[in-house]
Amino acid sequence: MFDFFRVLSVDKARERLFGAWKIASPGCDRVGLQEALGRVLAQDVISQDYVPPYSRSTVDGYAVMAKDTFGATQSLPAILQIVMDVPMGEIPTASLLPGQAARIPTGGALPQGADACVMIEHTETLDQHTVLLEKPVSPGENVVLRGEDISKHEALVESGRVLRPQDIGGLAALGVTEVAVWRKPKVAIVSTGDEIVPPWTQPALGQIRDINSYAIAAMARDFGAEPSIMGIAEDTYEDVRNLVEESLALADFVVLSGGSSVGTRDVAVRVLADLGPPGVLVHGVAVRPGKPVILAVCCGKPVFGLPGHPVSAMVAFQLFGKPAIEALHHGKIPEQFIDARLSRNISSASGRQDHIRVSLREQDGITWADPVLGKSGLIATMVKADGEIVIPTEKEGLMAGSLVRVRVF
Amino acid sequence: MFDFFRVLSVDKARERLFGAWKIASPGCDRVGLQEALGRVLAQDVISQDYVPPYSRSTVDGYAVMAKDTFGATQSLPAILQIVMDVPMGEIPTASLLPGQAARIPTGGALPQGADACVMIEHTETLDQHTVLLEKPVSPGENVVLRGEDISKHEALVESGRVLRPQDIGGLAALGVTEVAVWRKPKVAIVSTGDEIVPPWTQPALGQIRDINSYAIAAMARDFGAEPSIMGIAEDTYEDVRNLVEESLALADFVVLSGGSSVGTRDVAVRVLADLGPPGVLVHGVAVRPGKPVILAVCCGKPVFGLPGHPVSAMVAFQLFGKPAIEALHHGKIPEQFIDARLSRNISSASGRQDHIRVSLREQDGITWADPVLGKSGLIATMVKADGEIVIPTEKEGLMAGSLVRVRVF
Repeated sequence: MFDFFRVLSVDKARERLFGAWKIASPGCDRVGLQEALGRVLAQDVISQDYVPPYSRSTVDGYAVMAKDTFGATQSLPAILQIVMDVPMGEIPTASLLPGQAARIPTGGALPQGADACVMIEHTETLDQHTVLLEKPVSPGENVVLRGEDISKHEALVESGRVLRPQDIGGLAALGVTEVAVWRKPKVAIVSTGDEIVPPWTQPALGQIRDINSYAIAAMARDFGAEPSIMGIAEDTYEDVRNLVEESLALADFVVLSGGSSVGTRDVAVRVLADLGPPGVLVHGVAVRPGKPVILAVCCGKPVFGLPGHPVSAMVAFQLFGKPAIEALHHGKIPEQFIDARLSRNISSASGRQDHIRVSLREQDGITWADPVLGKSGLIATMVKADGEIVIPTEKEGLMAGSLVRVRVF
Repeated sequence: MFDFFRVLSVDKARERLFGAWKIASPGCDRVGLQEALGRVLAQDVISQDYVPPYSRSTVDGYAVMAKDTFGATQSLPAILQIVMDVPMGEIPTASLLPGQAARIPTGGALPQGADACVMIEHTETLDQHTVLLEKPVSPGENVVLRGEDISKHEALVESGRVLRPQDIGGLAALGVTEVAVWRKPKVAIVSTGDEIVPPWTQPALGQIRDINSYAIAAMARDFGAEPSIMGIAEDTYEDVRNLVEESLALADFVVLSGGSSVGTRDVAVRVLADLGPPGVLVHGVAVRPGKPVILAVCCGKPVFGLPGHPVSAMVAFQLFGKPAIEALHHGKIPEQFIDARLSRNISSASGRQDHIRVSLREQDGITWADPVLGKSGLIATMVKADGEIVIPTEKEGLMAGSLVRVRVF
């Protein structure tokens, strides 16, 4: 029996971490529009202009006074006098009077006096100077008014926004070609364990390749951080301490991965305690997989001791590394969820949060979540999975057929 | 009334595009593990090794023969002789005999003869050479067998996979430190329209800043392509033709944006017809917004004439640019959906596909989709939106309270 009563809940563990960590913001970069995608905005962007800067037609046709068209039908059309052509890219100099119309292209500027446009498809020209309108338009119809898209002094996007394509389009509309974004948080990743060798070597008997450095670095990158893989420390106090100190000097926080054995864990705990204050804050969290996680703050920066099994390490980094990155760059990292039906019963011990890998399958218009079988240490179960469901602490399992929210990864 | 009967459905338009386009694959890059995240794998990765390469303990405790533990309880423990310590990172040279146990750390290699491990918490040591086991274990318990994670000659990931952090971890496990990925498709983006000016200039009267080049470039980047913003062409045959030809020479496909007016559209259509064969394939699609889209193939490469309104342009690029990128790099670009309840009735003309922008709101445990008000040309409606719902061609609208699938963007 696992003893999940000596360990902290995920929420309590996070509380303890963020209570002990005085977050220093990593500062800003200024980037151009083409580098801004996915970065976290570090300023509010306030419009200095009206967008559009003039009232524009959204159709090819005629600019009119809407009231001249009221009651027009195919059998009783309104008859207007064509007094001008609006040239594209210029403001018409003359004004429109009652009973008059101006030929206008899509995007053309409305002349003074006009308040709507009629699509060319709903008109007939009698001669060069006379047009028949077969449908009424209301004021503002087929027109984007000056400032209707974005008004002057309007806050278009706020600090903390993870910039999407349309946000970048909005910035271009305002003439903002460079923005302040939070610098990418730096994460240093250290692997520990005498049996761990780099992926490019052939493991000798009893050795195994380093998976976690690469999987965790990719997660960090995915979350908008800048990872550095620091290498593999031997299971000695000196080696671990040296690499952690080096990491603390260059990163915003440090991830120690591997070292699930008591010996390795003890080395990590001693190093982190000595490097404090406050040192180790949490040792063990009521989550499966991921239980033997260590949370520490050393020299003012978080250090996470992740379990050695790749899946546990990834679950723990999702739970603690992601909010640390969010706190540093002040932006919420978007997550992807889908609702699905569970295909099998799952049991879960009360008192711990369970993370269950699932693959997704569409059948008869229903999205099914199939739990992925296999021991929780196996990276292949993550490769085969499309996402995970989380069984909260207070639940003892889920019945087949239940509606579950799957975090897609 | 819009006439949606002369135009093609989205599916038919796509069919015509992919029927006329002989897709030349853009070729491959070889990238290291740290550059592979989000790239599309261009090879199947077959395991050349067993992962793990040896049977490992997943606990700190004792390696045993499972059958020696059958029936063990706290009151009637099994008594085994401790014959060795397994050193981390090495393979034990001696074998285990019945009645014997080996001290083993998490990650340690099982000695020959052992088939399970007992957690230290479930044991008591009588003296240096004798251990009492208070719980039985079954064969394979607390052990990852050689090849249990990934077997030799197993296909771990296949060509077309968009690489995620766990896939990169899996590659590291196999010692694959460099992989072939499809080269990022190159997309050249040309804006057209005499009223369009670059975002860094102050528009004169009647002018408006280029939004689409930047929004579409960011979408292309988001889809895994490499965009080039080619600049703004004037509304003349020569200028448009020159910039499209320049674009065709350097990109896998070309996007013309802007030019919703009849005059501009005519210029674009003439250029694309002359540059064929086959030239223009589709002129107008039954979708709103996005109807006035032009699909062409010129010199063997697709050219998309997107509508000028930013929202229409983004909808059209999602519908046609995204599958073009997928076809070029052979990978399915992941999309993000969430199920929500619609907060208001929406009407839609039968015979066209309607794209409705929505913002998402959680209330009383329900995710609500609120339609974003505002004319479809307005970029601010996209900035305010969290996603879109699509009303299919055959439906005439959706009732408030209906369950809708929102594509999150």
